[in-house]
Amino acid sequence: MSNHFFKNNGPVKISKIQELLSTKQDQLNSDQDVFDIKDLFSSKKNDITFFHSKKYKDLAKNTKASFCITTESLKEDLPKSCKPILVDNVLVATSKITAKFYPNSINDNFDDTAVVINNTKLKDKVEYGLNVLIGKNVEIGSNCLIGHNTIIEQNVLIGNNCSIGCNTVIRNSIISDNVKILDNCVIGKHGFGFFPIKDKNLRYPHIGSVIIEDNCEIGCSSTIDRGSMSNTVIGRNSFLDNQIHIAHNVKIGENSIIAGQVGIAGSSIIGNNVRIGGQAGISGHLKIGDNVEIAGGSGVIKDVPSNSKIMGYPAKNIRDFLKENR
Amino acid sequence: MSNHFFKNNGPVKISKIQELLSTKQDQLNSDQDVFDIKDLFSSKKNDITFFHSKKYKDLAKNTKASFCITTESLKEDLPKSCKPILVDNVLVATSKITAKFYPNSINDNFDDTAVVINNTKLKDKVEYGLNVLIGKNVEIGSNCLIGHNTIIEQNVLIGNNCSIGCNTVIRNSIISDNVKILDNCVIGKHGFGFFPIKDKNLRYPHIGSVIIEDNCEIGCSSTIDRGSMSNTVIGRNSFLDNQIHIAHNVKIGENSIIAGQVGIAGSSIIGNNVRIGGQAGISGHLKIGDNVEIAGGSGVIKDVPSNSKIMGYPAKNIRDFLKENR
Amino acid sequence: MSNHFFKNNGPVKISKIQELLSTKQDQLNSDQDVFDIKDLFSSKKNDITFFHSKKYKDLAKNTKASFCITTESLKEDLPKSCKPILVDNVLVATSKITAKFYPNSINDNFDDTAVVINNTKLKDKVEYGLNVLIGKNVEIGSNCLIGHNTIIEQNVLIGNNCSIGCNTVIRNSIISDNVKILDNCVIGKHGFGFFPIKDKNLRYPHIGSVIIEDNCEIGCSSTIDRGSMSNTVIGRNSFLDNQIHIAHNVKIGENSIIAGQVGIAGSSIIGNNVRIGGQAGISGHLKIGDNVEIAGGSGVIKDVPSNSKIMGYPAKNIRDFLKENR
Repeated sequence: MSNHFFKNNGPVKISKIQELLSTKQDQLNSDQDVFDIKDLFSSKKNDITFFHSKKYKDLAKNTKASFCITTESLKEDLPKSCKPILVDNVLVATSKITAKFYPNSINDNFDDTAVVINNTKLKDKVEYGLNVLIGKNVEIGSNCLIGHNTIIEQNVLIGNNCSIGCNTVIRNSIISDNVKILDNCVIGKHGFGFFPIKDKNLRYPHIGSVIIEDNCEIGCSSTIDRGSMSNTVIGRNSFLDNQIHIAHNVKIGENSIIAGQVGIAGSSIIGNNVRIGGQAGISGHLKIGDNVEIAGGSGVIKDVPSNSKIMGYPAKNIRDFLKENR
Repeated sequence: MSNHFFKNNGPVKISKIQELLSTKQDQLNSDQDVFDIKDLFSSKKNDITFFHSKKYKDLAKNTKASFCITTESLKEDLPKSCKPILVDNVLVATSKITAKFYPNSINDNFDDTAVVINNTKLKDKVEYGLNVLIGKNVEIGSNCLIGHNTIIEQNVLIGNNCSIGCNTVIRNSIISDNVKILDNCVIGKHGFGFFPIKDKNLRYPHIGSVIIEDNCEIGCSSTIDRGSMSNTVIGRNSFLDNQIHIAHNVKIGENSIIAGQVGIAGSSIIGNNVRIGGQAGISGHLKIGDNVEIAGGSGVIKDVPSNSKIMGYPAKNIRDFLKENR
Repeated sequence: MSNHFFKNNGPVKISKIQELLSTKQDQLNSDQDVFDIKDLFSSKKNDITFFHSKKYKDLAKNTKASFCITTESLKEDLPKSCKPILVDNVLVATSKITAKFYPNSINDNFDDTAVVINNTKLKDKVEYGLNVLIGKNVEIGSNCLIGHNTIIEQNVLIGNNCSIGCNTVIRNSIISDNVKILDNCVIGKHGFGFFPIKDKNLRYPHIGSVIIEDNCEIGCSSTIDRGSMSNTVIGRNSFLDNQIHIAHNVKIGENSIIAGQVGIAGSSIIGNNVRIGGQAGISGHLKIGDNVEIAGGSGVIKDVPSNSKIMGYPAKNIRDFLKENR
């Protein structure tokens, strides 16, 4: 599947990739074209992928990619069909090559293709406020409303029966049916992902999107960042209150309820029917099961099994917490 | 008092109400008109009210409503003048009937009556920025300023000597004199109130307003939700810092000071002269007395008597907290 | 150095200052002009300064100011060249006199000098979106982008290669090169500083600015307040995520990384290479050293020495915290 939001500037010659990474491996055919960069699972023949941690060993063994950015110590797990490109820091190298394929995914400059909706073909289809701006190739279904001063950037897809508030910015997002997004939100900007480097950090590309499924509601002044390699997903019929921050790559299941000022850090996975009280925070890269209840103000720093009720900082079983804090 | 913001589509025949609730009670005169839906205390003859918990027993005994949505086990407390309408879930039923009377109170779609202020009679009365939008029937007192890109929706009332910032949205609100509301706020949207139902939650109507009394200040990027049945109130001379979230039905007393990023959950009542430090959170349905000091970062999960100083999560006496955490 | 953002309405006669403060000190030459109000260190001959706490004794002894607002008990530390103006409450008196010199620094009303950028000389220099508003005397370097609906208020200075998002308001700020400020931010409004007075608080002037140094990034929906007497500073190459609140007078060092929803209260000083996890809060008037790591959700209520790793509320050594909370 090609990327709906970011143009792939490939193919890129393998020699160019080696040059960008300052690597030398003479056994490669320097003229060979590389078509895309993807994760171990999604990449196909003539793509390049990356492999930076033993925990992805099984995926590495089965990758269909023709090339893989990796290290000396990990390369043995790759299949013969996949040639290793050896580097010291896999993620920095991957970032550089992703930027080569997708140069527009690094900076979130304003969308200069946006025009007032009255000058687009959507003017007869959508009910809209004043000063609504629409980028090129935006598609919006039937029976939608878009509030004053809202900006829908290029290529965004919005389903049927959606209501978007005022002063909201939506980019790099695919929004299904019956979704409400309230005022002053920013949906789909890049995540807070970069390599810290003295004097000038290196931003890494965010080529993922935000996916908001049917019947969701997103409260005022919330921010939902798009994914880096994968997508950020808000599952069907999940409701978010005001001032919520959802970081890049987070997946929220169906029928979940998230109260005001909650923050969910990057790459955490939240199950179905989860309820999160106001101001709770969830660290990055965690897995929260189904039917979990997290009390307001909690700080969750490890995985939570399904059907748990937790509270505190660090969050623990709610009964234990309340007993200790009587 | 009729509702200033939401048009009452009543009267509604009692037979229609029974039909909407799928109840059958043949002893009622199906032709009778019901004029409004209100709480036990405010409702009058020919209104319908609701009674869902024993703790409102005393109010129930004295209600003047002619009809009351309630349960088999609660109906005995109603006076003879008030006929019970029996249902399984009082709040869901009340939501449905409120939606029948006030259909516009459920969704917060953008105000399509808003026009650029230059085209309204306010253009000679108010000092305003560029792209200021004003809904129908907005009233603004003398000596007011409204910043660029700000939207004041229909029927909003603003007193004298007020200064509203830029990029702010105000709806369903009554604002008194000498009030400052800074940039990027959203005041008066519906609260985060709905009945969770698999695949499609049922939003309940919010027919209350936001009341901001004299001399208040509301910091940037704050959100104040309107009440469901009652109002959300910010008392005279209370100051709120940036990024504060005040949920529906909250009442804040006079002369209170609330620092940045504080969140107050639905229906909590805050007294006078209360000071709340940054990032503190207050759970819903609590009562915080007068002259209370809540340290920054605290999580308040029970009522707080007047003149207390509290800290921690869950918040306790500040001296105890600091002693235990030395 | 004169104030770039606030016009000094001085000189003010010393008799006028005495009148405003209701003080009587006949030995002063009532006709003498006072030119500016500054802190003990910065003020010069014919300026007025203020001295309200013993901890500034050494600065007081060496001040070059000709007048000093202070108390009976502190006046002995002033040099002979500096005449004390005796008051009961130094900070309230200082606020009143600052307001006399800088009347425009108290309220943040919208900038009525702003016009659409197409009507300014910047139209050929900057790449800009629709409805971008620019106040008078704004200067913007080469190769900058400014997004839709963004407002840059009068006298703001922006360097080269900056990208400003949409719906953002910038005032009283000096922004260096290669800075990114994302959507829906408010940069440079006055801080949350006032004297609580029953029925009508007294706001004090904020005559400082926001300084954002080279290579910084400020995430969406963040608020950075300007300083009262000094400046709020974001040091070179520091990155801030979404929904962050930085209060007045805060200084953040270089190469620091601050995750989403963090709040830093007024006048705290953060070192270089500091990392702060999501939702952490830092109280006011603290000093956080270099290379400090603060875990997400922490509440910091005392100074933190360099090279510490802390966690918890109140934050302590991270190993101790995790051991106690296993």
